[in-house]
This record gives sequence, C-alpha cells and structure tokens, in this order.
Amino acid sequence: MTDSPMTAPSAPSASAGEVLSGYLTTQAGAFLRALPQAVGEAGSRPGSLPASAAGADDLLRAVRRIGGALHTFGAAFEPGWTGELRTELAWLLDLLGREPGYRRRSSRLLAALDSLSDTGSESPGMLAGHAGAPKARALLERQLTLARTRTHTALLQELRTARLHALADRMTLLSGEVPLLDEVAGRGGGALVQHAAGALGALAAAAERLPLARAAEPYGGDGLHRLAVLPAARSASPSDADALLAADDEPWHRVRVLAKRARYALEVCGVPTAELDRLDAVLDRHRDASDAAATASTAARTPRITPATAYVLGVVHADQRLEVEAARYAFGHQWPKLPHHGWHEWATV
Amino acid sequence: MTDSPMTAPSAPSASAGEVLSGYLTTQAGAFLRALPQAVGEAGSRPGSLPASAAGADDLLRAVRRIGGALHTFGAAFEPGWTGELRTELAWLLDLLGREPGYRRRSSRLLAALDSLSDTGSESPGMLAGHAGAPKARALLERQLTLARTRTHTALLQELRTARLHALADRMTLLSGEVPLLDEVAGRGGGALVQHAAGALGALAAAAERLPLARAAEPYGGDGLHRLAVLPAARSASPSDADALLAADDEPWHRVRVLAKRARYALEVCGVPTAELDRLDAVLDRHRDASDAAATASTAARTPRITPATAYVLGVVHADQRLEVEAARYAFGHQWPKLPHHGWHEWATV
Repeated sequence: MTDSPMTAPSAPSASAGEVLSGYLTTQAGAFLRALPQAVGEAGSRPGSLPASAAGADDLLRAVRRIGGALHTFGAAFEPGWTGELRTELAWLLDLLGREPGYRRRSSRLLAALDSLSDTGSESPGMLAGHAGAPKARALLERQLTLARTRTHTALLQELRTARLHALADRMTLLSGEVPLLDEVAGRGGGALVQHAAGALGALAAAAERLPLARAAEPYGGDGLHRLAVLPAARSASPSDADALLAADDEPWHRVRVLAKRARYALEVCGVPTAELDRLDAVLDRHRDASDAAATASTAARTPRITPATAYVLGVVHADQRLEVEAARYAFGHQWPKLPHHGWHEWATV
Repeated sequence: MTDSPMTAPSAPSASAGEVLSGYLTTQAGAFLRALPQAVGEAGSRPGSLPASAAGADDLLRAVRRIGGALHTFGAAFEPGWTGELRTELAWLLDLLGREPGYRRRSSRLLAALDSLSDTGSESPGMLAGHAGAPKARALLERQLTLARTRTHTALLQELRTARLHALADRMTLLSGEVPLLDEVAGRGGGALVQHAAGALGALAAAAERLPLARAAEPYGGDGLHRLAVLPAARSASPSDADALLAADDEPWHRVRVLAKRARYALEVCGVPTAELDRLDAVLDRHRDASDAAATASTAARTPRITPATAYVLGVVHADQRLEVEAARYAFGHQWPKLPHHGWHEWATV
C-alpha cells in the first residue's frame, strides 16, 4: 500500500470544477469501498469477514484526503455543506487514527527494546542481558494490546452507528455529484493552484515559527535538557514533565497536519508531491517517537513495577526523545532546501 | 589553570639533548613544587596546610608530561633508567587520576540531573518535577562522595610512602641533570621531530581503526542500539551490557592516550598543539561521558531504590551514552580535517 495519489492526472484543459469533482468522487468511492472491510461482518454469521486493519487504513486515507480538499478548496463549495461534512470527517478521522496509533507505538517500542537488549554478538545493545528488559517489554506489550483492543471495540461500535451511516450516505452522494459553486467551477484549473499555494503558505508560516535554529546542530540535547520556550509550553505546569513535553511537541504536530494538507492540495492539482512526502514522513516519525516516549513514561508510573523495569523504561523514554530530536534535525535540514520561498509567487501564477 | 606548555620555547639552534633536558628539568621542577601541596601537612600541627586538589592536579600534569616524553623520546635515554622511571610514573598517574575522575563524574551527573529536572519556566527539562529526580541526585551524590573520600584517603597514604619518596628523589635528580645518551644528545633539535612524528603516526594508525564511518552521521543511535563489532568487544559476555559498553569505548580511550602523548611530544619540539588540544578535549569529553554513564548504570543496581529513582537513572544513563555518541560524532568531524596525512612526511624533515 503506497501513499501515491489515487486520482488520475487531470487534463491540462480541465476546469477547476472538473478537477475537484474528479478528485472528490474518486476519494468518496475509495471511502465506500473501504468501509465494509473496516466494519467487517463480525457477529452476523459463521465464516463472516473480520474487520480488517487494511480496510480501516484505506478508510483513513480517503477521509484525510476528502477533509483536506474541503479545507483547502473550501471557497469552491457551498459553505454550510462543507462545514457539516468537515465536522463529520474530523470525528471519523479521530476515531480511525487511534488504533493505528497504538499499533505504531507498540511496534516502535518493542523494536527499540529488542534492539537495545539484543545480545547478538554482532551488534549487542546497551541493555544487553539486562534483567529489566523482558519485564519492560511484557509490560508495554500488555498495556498497548489492552489499549488497542479497547480502541478497536470502540471503533467497531461507532462504525455501526447512525452517525456513520449518515456520513456514508453523504459519501454516496459525493461519489455521484460534488456540490460546487458555479463561479469557481467554471474557472480554469489554474484557479485551484491559488488555493493550493495558500495551503503551502500556511505550512511555510508555521514551519518558520518552529525553533529550527535549536535543531540545526546535531546533539544539541535540547529535547532532553532544555525544552523550547514556545508560548504553547508556557501554559503547562513547570512541574509536569509530560505536559511540558507535549506542549514542546505540539507546534511540530501542527506543522505535520499542515504538511499533509499541502500534500493533498498538490495531489488535487496534479503536482508532484515527492518533497512534501519526505517532509511528511519525517514529521510522522517525529509524532511516532513523541507518542512512544510518552507511552514509556506513563508505563514507568505503573504501580508495583521493579526498579529494573523502571530503569529500562527510563532508557527507552530517553531513546525515543532522542528520536524526536533526530527527526527535528532531519526536518531542519530538509526544510530550507525546499523551494517554499517561491510558494508565494507560485500563488500568483 | 591552562594546559599550555610550561617549557620556554627552545632556541632553533639548540641540540636535541638541550631541548629534552630543558623540557624534563622544567617538568621535574613542577613535580617537586606541586608535591608538598598535593600531600598537605595534615596531622602535623594546628593551622597546617590541607592537601590541595590544585596541587594534585599540577602533580598529575607534570607526571603525564614526563611519562609522555620518556615514552616518545625513549631512544635518547639509557633504557634501564627510562623503564624503571616510567613504571613508577604510571603507578602515580593511576593513583592521581582516580579522585579527579570521581570529581568529574559527580559534577557531570549532578549537572545533567539538575538540567534534566529543571522546572524553570524558561527551559525546563524532560524530568521536570519528576519525583525520582531528587532521590536519584541524592543517591549519586552520596555514592560519589563516598568513593571520592576513600580515593582521597588512599592517595594521601600513598603520597607518604617510601615508594613516593624514592620517586621524588628521582625527580630531584632529573631537575638537575637528564641522563641522555651521547649519540642522540649531540644531534640537532630536528632529530626530536622524527620521534614526535612517530607519536603522531601511532595516533593516526589507532584513529583510523576506529569505527569512524558509524559516527559520521548524527543520530545513528549506534551507541544505544548497536555497539561496535570491534575485536575488543567480542571478548565481553554478550549478556553483560556494562562490559560490552566498556569494550566498545576502549579503543576510543586508547586513542585519547595517544592524542595526549602526541600533544606532549609536539610541546617538547616547541610545535603549536592547538589542533591536538581540541582533539584531546573531545576525547576527554568522550571518556567523562562514558564514565558517567557507567556510574548511573551501577547506581541503578543499588538495592531497595524506588522505581522512580531507577527510572531517572535510566534516563541519565541514556543521556550520557548520547553524550558519548556526540563526542564520537565531533571527533569524526575534527579528525579528517587535521593535517595528519602529512605527518609521515613531516617525520622525514
């Protein structure tokens, strides 16, 4: 499964309305195909198909793209319709994102633990043979499996509610006809580029506000020793390290959302997105490491764990915060090389 | 206190013997001046001077330089004399180095803990407000103070033994006359350069055997996840992480010794050492972080500590191993820029 655009390249002569309709009907179709796989047929009859993670992932991808297009090209649609649909898509996006989040945390943390405690003579880790490593692994696996199972059950329940059926009905309508405003729909496809440039501009503005200078040098150690003095971090209690870390990461998570939105906007316009794909991958890595670090920190507060287990979780927490640092460093080196300084001029094409 | 050469620049026309004698008599004089300050007059009478850490540091510096000169320019001296004196200097070097080692570990670990648990709103750390931080700090401080006190007492006892008095007598003789072999002493000062080039060549050979490619990219994470597959590491049990880390660090510690030796050799020849000083500083940082990490790991095995304390020690351990990585990265970027590829030609001057 790749993240390449699922739309056919639009003809150069296509109108803005034709391009948007083509994109949205394609994505709505993907939504409707993925939905039954995501819901499964559990409980209906013996031999019924189980709810599939791949189906939920496909559903998530379609929801992200439709939501992104409605946001970036909102001026092309009837405002009331867009607002309602975006609310419902945001609700589903949140629901769908939870289980994959636990899946990623689980695979990342268990892989880190296995690597750190590897006793292979070729490349042993710094926790090789440590008594706390298998205990910490079992603890993390148990807690994450439980969280994942709960989330999965909650998702399946929501996917069978009237709210989801109403959203599916909207997608059926969208796959047939997109309610475009005439004054936009009739314009050339170039009109869309202005909106996409707006999405790129929002990304650029947010990225430039990141503390990139702090991430420019490797091993600044700031992620461990000195958190950013961002306004977002100031509201957190100075004695709650988890809240401070979350506040420190928040502007980066925000840039991640804007990068995805810009990527989908370029997809709509049929513009290559390879550079934004790479940026998005780095920001995904940042988010995953941040989530994994928080999970290790939370697990270390489990009552009655042994000191050895807690020690290993401390190493894992620091290791994942180091990954956060590394992702910021990678972002800081990719970002200035992107042609984003031309994005504002691009908007005037 | 700076680490600049303490010898007067030798005249260009000085013979090899004059240069070596000048350097060694100066260093032997420094040894003899520092010794009473290092020993103190404790127990002799009220108001007597205490043993001073600065005195011990000065003593250490003189011992290092004399030992280095005897090693690098060994061919200029009567072999039996050199061998005996180097054995005694190595014994004293080991004794003198222990207390400063604990001092450095203590200041490094407590500073790391204070920074990691800082709740200042300007730059809080990732352990801000963590319940385990003050406990871990108290534990490390208690253990390191105890180790330092024991080492100090042992050093003072050794500094009053007959063995030390015999060594001081040798230094008194050395400050008067250096027992040089005639065939070397009479040659031009340029003859010394060949020996210094040998020291630089030994450094270059050992540095090139380091896994520099692994340290070339920042955040390789190898120091935490995958230790080097050096022959030195293979002899350690694959289930003893501390032994593996020590074996992983050993080749770097060896290069540190060779860098110091090369630095002192250039000092003897009156050649500027700024580049080797910087290299030496990076390797000192590597050694200090390696020692500090091992101390945190050992402290985490203290019986009956709380999980919160152990967790914080795990973070500190990983943090210091990250410093080890950072020092290797810094070395890997300094080393190729040094003009060491010309050192072998330099030997033929």
